[in-house]
Amino acid sequence: MIKARVVVTLKNGVLDPQGKAIEGALGSLGFSGVGGVRQGKVFDLVIEHDDKAKAEADLKDMCEKLLANTVIENYTIALS
Amino acid sequence: MIKARVVVTLKNGVLDPQGKAIEGALGSLGFSGVGGVRQGKVFDLVIEHDDKAKAEADLKDMCEKLLANTVIENYTIALS
Repeated sequence: MIKARVVVTLKNGVLDPQGKAIEGALGSLGFSGVGGVRQGKVFDLVIEHDDKAKAEADLKDMCEKLLANTVIENYTIALS
Repeated sequence: MIKARVVVTLKNGVLDPQGKAIEGALGSLGFSGVGGVRQGKVFDLVIEHDDKAKAEADLKDMCEKLLANTVIENYTIALS
């Protein structure tokens, strides 16, 4: 069994209205000096076999097909 | 300037319908042997000073007040 974490974040230059909204909210809560807030997604998955190479390849495929919109998002895969 | 990453995930035992939906979609896309899909949020922030201890304390406060619903979510903070 392999545990995997996929982190999907917006590519640089892509506008992040959610991040901007959070930045504004943090400011109004009194947190000064906080900038560049960007929000992304994280997926924790369990791969039910022990072949790390196959898991990595499958996860890349899952990202390309479902977990990430590769036009505007980057993804990273970490196995543990 | 300090870069920070906050990862917010659901606590164990909290139902994750989104994760279940993704698990189902991965199955219908032909990815077998994938279980326990859990989705969370990741926030990348820039703290505009260099005091790591203060940044850590502020980030914890931001999580408690805004970024995480601490009733059902856990959060981790990583500074770089």
